[in-house]
Order: sequence, then C-alpha cells, then structure tokens
Amino acid sequence: MSTNTRVLLAARPEGWPTAATFRIEETPLPSPREGEMLVRIAWLSLDPYMRGRMNAGRSYAKAVEVGEVMVGAAVGEVAESRHAGFARGDFVLGAFGWQEWAVSDGAGVMKVQAGRVPLSANLGAVGMPGVTAYVGLYDIGAPKPGETVVVTAAAGAVGGVVGQLAKIRGCRAVGIAGGQEKCDYAVRELGFDACLDYKAGDLASWLTAATPKGVDVLFENVGGPIMDLVLRRLNAFARVPLCGLISQYNETEVYGVTSFASLLVNRAKLQGFIVSDDMGRWPEALGKLGAWVAEGKIKGRETIANGIRSAPSAFVGMLRGENIGKQLVKVA
Amino acid sequence: MSTNTRVLLAARPEGWPTAATFRIEETPLPSPREGEMLVRIAWLSLDPYMRGRMNAGRSYAKAVEVGEVMVGAAVGEVAESRHAGFARGDFVLGAFGWQEWAVSDGAGVMKVQAGRVPLSANLGAVGMPGVTAYVGLYDIGAPKPGETVVVTAAAGAVGGVVGQLAKIRGCRAVGIAGGQEKCDYAVRELGFDACLDYKAGDLASWLTAATPKGVDVLFENVGGPIMDLVLRRLNAFARVPLCGLISQYNETEVYGVTSFASLLVNRAKLQGFIVSDDMGRWPEALGKLGAWVAEGKIKGRETIANGIRSAPSAFVGMLRGENIGKQLVKVA
Repeated sequence: MSTNTRVLLAARPEGWPTAATFRIEETPLPSPREGEMLVRIAWLSLDPYMRGRMNAGRSYAKAVEVGEVMVGAAVGEVAESRHAGFARGDFVLGAFGWQEWAVSDGAGVMKVQAGRVPLSANLGAVGMPGVTAYVGLYDIGAPKPGETVVVTAAAGAVGGVVGQLAKIRGCRAVGIAGGQEKCDYAVRELGFDACLDYKAGDLASWLTAATPKGVDVLFENVGGPIMDLVLRRLNAFARVPLCGLISQYNETEVYGVTSFASLLVNRAKLQGFIVSDDMGRWPEALGKLGAWVAEGKIKGRETIANGIRSAPSAFVGMLRGENIGKQLVKVA
Repeated sequence: MSTNTRVLLAARPEGWPTAATFRIEETPLPSPREGEMLVRIAWLSLDPYMRGRMNAGRSYAKAVEVGEVMVGAAVGEVAESRHAGFARGDFVLGAFGWQEWAVSDGAGVMKVQAGRVPLSANLGAVGMPGVTAYVGLYDIGAPKPGETVVVTAAAGAVGGVVGQLAKIRGCRAVGIAGGQEKCDYAVRELGFDACLDYKAGDLASWLTAATPKGVDVLFENVGGPIMDLVLRRLNAFARVPLCGLISQYNETEVYGVTSFASLLVNRAKLQGFIVSDDMGRWPEALGKLGAWVAEGKIKGRETIANGIRSAPSAFVGMLRGENIGKQLVKVA
C-alpha cells in the first residue's frame, strides 16, 4: 500500500451532514521524520462530539478547518518509528483522524496493551466513551445504591456503559432508546432493569411506570423533548450529568426546554462535562473499566463499518441512531 | 385592638393572582394557651416563593390550603407569653403568616436583637433573602476575585445583596432589572458596576458590552428569555445558582429555554437551591450579613405597603416588579 486514503471536511454542514460535507482523497503514504512515527490505523472511532467540531465558532474545542482531515481517535500499530518512545509493532491510541495512516510526534499518544481486551475496546468501554460514562455517572451523578438512574441513548457507546455502571453501584438502571431492538439489547445483554422505546408510543406514562420512585440521576446524552420529559420526574436533590444533546446537533431550530422549573423546585444539580477536562480521572477509570470488561461485567456490541471510505455514511448513521453499541470503522 | 385581620387563600390562582385569590377576614384576637405566646406582628415579608405555595401539587414545600392563612415570615413583638422561652417584649421572627396577630408554640421562632440593624432588616438583607444571596453566590456560585457575576432581578431583595456580595468578593457585578430607576438604584446606591434595563432595548448587545470577559456566575432569579440570553454568555466552567424563575410563576404557557447547549459546551454547573435546605449555613451568613449591614457595606431600600389589608395588592405588585429592594407590609 503506497497511498493514504483520508476524509477531509469539505464544507461546514448546515443541519445534517451530506455528501458535500466530506471529501475523500488519496495522498502519498507519509514518511515520519526524526522524532515521529508512522501509524497504520486499525480502528477509527466515530463519536457524536465530532459533529460539534464541524461547526465554526466558539465551542469547547478547536473546530476542524475546512480542508483538514476530520478529527477522531483511532487505534493502530506503529509501522515505522523514528521516535524514541515508540517501537515498530507497538499498539497505540491517538487522535489520528479519519485516515488510513498517520504520522505522529507522539503528543497525546498512548500505548495500549494488546490482549487483555480487544484492541477496539480502547475506543469504547475501555476508552473515551467508557471514561465518559464513569466520570459522568460516578463523579457528577454520584448515585447511591437503591437510587434510580435514567440514561438516554442507552444503547450507545456511552449509555450502555452508564447503565452497567449503575447496576454495579446497586442502582435501578432505566434506559431510553429508539427502537425495540436497542431496548432488548439494553435489557437482555447489558442488564438494564428497563428500557423504554421512545419511538413506540406513550413515553411519559412508561417513564412513570419504570421509575416508581422518581429519578435520582439523569445521565443525559440526547436533549430535546425526551430530556424535557425526564426532567419532570426528578427527585429532590437529583443530579444531571449533561454529556450530550445529540438530538439537537443537526437541528437548525433548537428545541425549547420547558421543564427548567423542575431543576429549581427539586434543587437539582445539572453539570455539563467533557471527559478530557480532567485527565487525572482516566487512570482510575480505565483500570476499573478494563477489569470489568475483562471479567465480562461490562459488555457491549460494536457496529462496524468497513473501510475508511465508509466513515462519512457511518458517521451520519450514528447521528441518526442507526448503530447499536460502539460505532467503529475498521480501517485495516 | 380586639380583632385579628388576616388574609386567607380563597382560591388557587390560574396564572396571575386576582382579587378572588384572597379573602380578608377579621377574627377575634387569639389567646395563647400554656406553652404558647401571642405575637403582635410588626412587619410581614412578601417574597416570590409564596406564589409557588399557592399552587396545589408537588413542590418543595407544602402548599397553602384553600381557606388557610397565607404563609409568610414576619417579625413582631411578644405581647403575651405562656412559653418558657419567650417573654413579653421579645422581638421574634417566625412564619407567622399574613395576619396582625399570631399565636405560636415557638417552633421555628427565633429571637431577634433589637438595635444593631432595623427590625425589618431581619426580613431582608439580614434574613432569608440575604442568606439566599450569601449561600447561592458564595457556596454555589463560588466566584473568584476578578470574575464576572451577573444577577437578574438585580434591584430585588435577593439580587441587590448578590451584587454587593460580588463586589465584596472583588468581582465585576452586572445586574439586569426592569426600568431605569431600578438600574440607577443598583449602580448608584448598591455599587454594581453596571445594570442593564431589559425593558429599554437591545439587551443582547448591552450584555456583551457589559461582560467583556464573559460571564462566570449567573445568579438566576428570573428565567425566561433573559436567562436564555445570559446563558449564551457563559464562560467555560461557569456556575449558575438557580434561585428563582419569577418570570414564569404566573405564566400559563412556559417559556422554552433554547440555550441549554451552552451549559454543555461550557461545562457549566447549574444548581437549584432553597436556602432552608441547609440551616447549618445560616449562622455564618447572618453573622456576616449583620456586620456588613451595620457597617453600611450592604445597603438596600425597602418598599413598604401599609396595613395587612394591602398585602394582596403589594404581593401582586412585587410579582410584577413594581418594588425596589425588599417588599414589606407594615402591619403595626
């Protein structure tokens, strides 16, 4: 292989990304200079936060510029190293982007152990999504045994781990997801106590039935009318780790949240967070998550798209909720 | 005086309270039994939270029942005591309600010192509104010197103290209030750095100009479109003590908050609170507030309605924002 296929941001999307949003190009295989390494990417992670990076303007991280390779975490193998800290054959995790090969100076790159968990798990339950679930639920949500935890996008990479962490803590775990297949997955494979299909009917009354003691923690990934509904079920002193608002990322007209008063009346704490803000929490989280995945206490499916050229359509599919579990691109 | 004039909740309001919401009645002067005392009420406090107590259903405190005396804190003088802990002539603060005389068994009643601050201050800056400002700003808002604090309803009993506490902490204090007179009061009398009249024009651009470094703390009393606007100005890791949503209390159609994403992107913490949840914070707060009021470091006007019969109209006037500073009823 002498070329590097990569996906660039071709234009900032207004609303949903389209074919015109991306451009795929082939470039010559890059060569590492002194102090650099060449990584052959095996797995690319697709995550909702990437949609935010496609927008111009103020956000929590630098936007991808038009004409740049799309950002994204990936795992791969060092194919050639001129970096003292990495050797050919090392497995590495880094922000290598949507491409087949990456040259890196090692900044922000971590070696990952092969063997204990599958390589791709470093992009899922034993990676950013898992740590997001761990920090958001345990640090911000701080659920006590016996409390009720509701998580939206329950069949996603983060939500699935949240539910399992809630069960490990001794809580009642109630998921909300779109479609019966996802709900069956959350309950039968992941061990949620209940999962409500918001596409199927009367979510409000199902939620009441599934949370007979109210909601102590809402781990929010979705936003919009579903969040608005769950906010009304909050108990006094509830906690709302605000992790994502995926229902809103592609909307040109934003949903107006009407149950704000519930946060006041119930003296709830709502906190937005981004897992990269406190890297000090990662070692503990990764250690626990790795052990639980290795023991089979935390599980999760992967939805796999084949080849880097499939990344744009897989990304849009994930934003539409077509995946179950972690959305990956198998690059090599 | 041989009668007790009192104001009852006659009917639960739908939307704004009207004349039909209240009933004024005269009853015989009550007599204390053994273990009780008779209090002659001097000052009744009118506060926005009372509107919530007029509604049926789940809230953070028990609703006032139809036919009951309206709840409210008041200060007065013990006229007759058969209670071991209180003597005739003691000044006391308690939830005595909207009436001229109250019989109390002493539960929840505190003696107040006459002299250091005016008696009515125990219902304002050295009472519940002051402690609300203190706990909300210092504990939840936790502003650092040099940060920017925005407070809505800046000319109200709570908001006015918030701005002065922000200045004591070394912050930039920016108020939002309705009308030039209130804004002049906040800036010239209370020492706010700026106060924006939301009724006068282009609040969005004024807010940008008044908060050149963004907003680190939003002390929220109002809700609705003004809150929505300020949320967009939050800095990373901003804090939002959510104290009230007075713009919404009488609305039958709730405003939909569109800037929820700002809480996520900026990893903001928003926390609803009610000052009575942690009575352990009151002694410190009252001690500090009392000293600052006595020294003239914290000031505030009072808007005074005369006679208990004026309480309903004064209450509705307060909900409409007609008061400056603390709204009181001079009962005796």
